[in-house]
Amino acid sequence: MATAPSQLLPPVVMTIAASDPTGGAGVQADILTLASMGCHPLSVITALTIQDTGGVEDVLPIDADWVADQARALLEDMPISAFKLGMLGSAETVSVIAEILADYPDIPLVLDPVLASGRGDALADDETVSAMIELLLPQTTILTPNTLEARRLALDEEIDDDDPDAPECARRLVATGCEFVLVTGTHANTAQVINTLYNDAGVVRSDAWDRLPGSYHGSGCTLASAIAANLANGLDIADAVRDAQDYTWQALMAGFRPGMGQFIPDRFFWARNNEGQEDA
Amino acid sequence: MATAPSQLLPPVVMTIAASDPTGGAGVQADILTLASMGCHPLSVITALTIQDTGGVEDVLPIDADWVADQARALLEDMPISAFKLGMLGSAETVSVIAEILADYPDIPLVLDPVLASGRGDALADDETVSAMIELLLPQTTILTPNTLEARRLALDEEIDDDDPDAPECARRLVATGCEFVLVTGTHANTAQVINTLYNDAGVVRSDAWDRLPGSYHGSGCTLASAIAANLANGLDIADAVRDAQDYTWQALMAGFRPGMGQFIPDRFFWARNNEGQEDA
Repeated sequence: MATAPSQLLPPVVMTIAASDPTGGAGVQADILTLASMGCHPLSVITALTIQDTGGVEDVLPIDADWVADQARALLEDMPISAFKLGMLGSAETVSVIAEILADYPDIPLVLDPVLASGRGDALADDETVSAMIELLLPQTTILTPNTLEARRLALDEEIDDDDPDAPECARRLVATGCEFVLVTGTHANTAQVINTLYNDAGVVRSDAWDRLPGSYHGSGCTLASAIAANLANGLDIADAVRDAQDYTWQALMAGFRPGMGQFIPDRFFWARNNEGQEDA
Repeated sequence: MATAPSQLLPPVVMTIAASDPTGGAGVQADILTLASMGCHPLSVITALTIQDTGGVEDVLPIDADWVADQARALLEDMPISAFKLGMLGSAETVSVIAEILADYPDIPLVLDPVLASGRGDALADDETVSAMIELLLPQTTILTPNTLEARRLALDEEIDDDDPDAPECARRLVATGCEFVLVTGTHANTAQVINTLYNDAGVVRSDAWDRLPGSYHGSGCTLASAIAANLANGLDIADAVRDAQDYTWQALMAGFRPGMGQFIPDRFFWARNNEGQEDA
């Protein structure tokens, strides 16, 4: 017999999200991002999709109990270091996941509020959005909406008839109980992409990145997963956010266009830019 | 705006298999293996599972048409360099996949005939096995059964009442029309793991590896995906098999045990053994 295998244990991170067969977004993006940052990914699937690099054709939500059972089996077997939530699919699924998370209050939770695909396809109905606000935001360590998502989440109250800007949206979202909000500027109409991290004291940090040409599939998933990986690796929130943005920007810069639609980030840019080490 | 992203396009490989939320086996194992070998993974999900590192608790097969539609959307958008098939779930799914594959006769097909999990849980009924033999083997470039799977596939004929050894099983399987058969020795009772590659001329090559202590989850998925990645990268079949075995053995050697059950291969051993390059 050979010697015993390595006892080195990578941090384990659980993603709960939908499947994207293209590998651009969804659990597939999370798996690639987490693994490329030294974490072992667990993946709980909330919905299947039929899609190509051009758009989503169909969505098959998975029964909420089946989603919960996938997660419970893993959590009873393995200690995990962070949660990352993406598209959840239904208010029922949000509710069962919120119940599970309540049993693990000390594990960092990164919530990427997927309300529409990067190409605009709607992926969450009003009931799902309301459940996220009521049940998930109070348990969230860091929420990562783009400006459109921040606005939709911040305005989901019947009394609202005003037009809040991003800082006001962030203020309202922090008031729901989530600890940090990173509002990303990918959907804003600015020369640079400006991402701003808020907590209850206001702006924590703001970073600007050159806006890349072309359209990318899965940049939000990549960023949120990279933050989760960094938190699992022990970074504090500001460093986790800073480093994850850097990682994401590099993955986008190295992106490729395998089909007729959007570019896909290359989460292993550091491997493909250093040819040969795959064979080490 | 920044400069345009890299135009380097990795080979694209499609896996069609079940989800394993532990990340040990299934499409998750395929995604990690393919990406770690420089390919972009597309993943078509045939079934969901509830499982931990100790065993499979439940299986949810996905409707065959939904499986087919996931694959068709991708194939109409992107050129791919190899197919890898794992657990297919039902005879209907085998049938729709066989129809799709018939439209792509020139793309190498690696078929890992998942009939039971590495821990013995049954994952294919007799009807599914028969459909695989009749519809998939004739289209297969390389079949990767362990000794138990080779025997079950080779004996699936009502006239059989004998006890074929591995070479005879391989001979019969090649006779069904699959080009190469790699019979793996992981389930044999030998000091070394001996894997033997056959074609219609007999033994092509045979490789022996030290048997590792402990029980691994996903070694078969890893090996089959690594062969698919190597074929997509342009290696001939003998080199693809040789290199994939080396890769798999190293991934197992670097494996870790995140829960209370089996070890999980580390498909990024070359990254974690060279600390720091993740930050390059």
